[in-house]
Amino acid sequence: MSNHKITGVYSAAATPLNTDGNPDIGLFTEHCHRLINEGCHGVALLGTTGEANSFSSAERHMLLEAALNAGIPADKLLPGTGVVAIPETVELTKHALSLGVTQVVMLPPFYYKGVSDEGLFTAYAQTLEKIGDNRLQVILYHIPQVSGVPLSVPLISRLVEAFPDTVVGIKESAGDFNNMQAITAACPGFSVLCGADPLLLPLLKAGGAGCITATSNLVANSLRTVYDNIHDETKSAEVEAAQARINAFRTLSNSYVQIPTIKAMVGLKTGNAAWKRTRPPLVPLNDAEYAALAEGYSKLP
Amino acid sequence: MSNHKITGVYSAAATPLNTDGNPDIGLFTEHCHRLINEGCHGVALLGTTGEANSFSSAERHMLLEAALNAGIPADKLLPGTGVVAIPETVELTKHALSLGVTQVVMLPPFYYKGVSDEGLFTAYAQTLEKIGDNRLQVILYHIPQVSGVPLSVPLISRLVEAFPDTVVGIKESAGDFNNMQAITAACPGFSVLCGADPLLLPLLKAGGAGCITATSNLVANSLRTVYDNIHDETKSAEVEAAQARINAFRTLSNSYVQIPTIKAMVGLKTGNAAWKRTRPPLVPLNDAEYAALAEGYSKLP
Repeated sequence: MSNHKITGVYSAAATPLNTDGNPDIGLFTEHCHRLINEGCHGVALLGTTGEANSFSSAERHMLLEAALNAGIPADKLLPGTGVVAIPETVELTKHALSLGVTQVVMLPPFYYKGVSDEGLFTAYAQTLEKIGDNRLQVILYHIPQVSGVPLSVPLISRLVEAFPDTVVGIKESAGDFNNMQAITAACPGFSVLCGADPLLLPLLKAGGAGCITATSNLVANSLRTVYDNIHDETKSAEVEAAQARINAFRTLSNSYVQIPTIKAMVGLKTGNAAWKRTRPPLVPLNDAEYAALAEGYSKLP
Repeated sequence: MSNHKITGVYSAAATPLNTDGNPDIGLFTEHCHRLINEGCHGVALLGTTGEANSFSSAERHMLLEAALNAGIPADKLLPGTGVVAIPETVELTKHALSLGVTQVVMLPPFYYKGVSDEGLFTAYAQTLEKIGDNRLQVILYHIPQVSGVPLSVPLISRLVEAFPDTVVGIKESAGDFNNMQAITAACPGFSVLCGADPLLLPLLKAGGAGCITATSNLVANSLRTVYDNIHDETKSAEVEAAQARINAFRTLSNSYVQIPTIKAMVGLKTGNAAWKRTRPPLVPLNDAEYAALAEGYSKLP
């Protein structure tokens, strides 16, 4: 069996907004509970799908505290805490730890582009040393198409070697299966979690640890079916059907800009159009897009 | 004559660090005074060259306050205040205004890529409305090779039309002269300031407003010579020589990663090697690079 420190199905939870553009705390915590009830092992709040980088530090604090206050256990919360400036990544991570939340997803500093592996290693190392808490478990975050800052396999290996008890996994959101296999091969026991839902099944077969995905906002139960039954050959048809359903939702979510579309689909799932709202620079779907999305949604398996 | 609201030679000031990696306030304010004394009309602190996105909000506050406390007049300071989250861009800008600093350089939210002009317009509009201070003058910041978020000419035009007294200029750091001309043509009276020093002379001839450059950390006097004498035909040889000197410094600063190299060159200019330090993810030049840079520096005009 795997010796991964972090395995399972985690949701890159979307963040609903009020009419004034602030986080809708009630709707958010209701969503977190639904994700857990539908099968997620945990909620990776405040990531890319969660529009975290459009929220202030104070808003990030408030959302994490709200999830805990609403009864989501600390060990089921994996907030994103990586921002552009090391002192603020340190502060956000310390805040999570102060609440008993020990697992975080951490972007590299992402303003400067083309930076060296040495620079990224030093950035992560300084961050972890300044946090200085041996409870911490970090999931690195590789999403170069958004962050503009890829994490290379040599960099990942060096971080795992330097911080073996802390740097325990990676969210691979480039959707590059060869890269996931290369990381798995280079770092035995290190948890590779895919960000692209269609890769969950092949990744688990190849020794990966699970997923942190956007489509989990909609089909956590199907993701869980794949995860729980991947090694049970008698259930291969069920697993394949679940993965096909996941893929159908994912394909529809890519009809328009993904995050507004995922949010609109959560609104269609739950019957609450408040979910259509986004914070700038993201904009909600327009009426024609929403109508076409609703039509497509009604035909999903 | 031009009716630009902002014209001149501004320095994208570098930020020196202590041995502990925190800003060296004394060295920084000394540098600000030197930039003004050497001819800069103002100091555009806390920009890309200033490593602003590697500093926390608290550090940004401290640096701006230090410059004021050291006697740099508020109307000669143009801090960068644009970050990824609108509430924090609002807060940083309000902080500047509270100190009497009314001109700022503002990046768009830069985490999400491929966002629409509608989304970027809404982001800037919400930011300006939340700031709600009619003293404010904003210089937009187009540096797509770093931010990953270009500002299109139609977006700029729409912002200028919606906020004619507030959106008064742009720092064009793509180094695209055709783009600078297109903006100048689309927005009469709007100040186009180049980020690439070699373009100062041609931009001024084409109706541009000036520059905010990195090389000004080293050759502000030459930039000022170009700016002051651009329309005096009797001084064309002097202007050409000054632009050639600027270009030689710029070329050398591009020998290695630009920001660490500029900082190292300020150290060579002032005889203070403390300037070599950078904050991760940027790393200082290594010894061999520094030795070669020093050799090149000694031969500059």
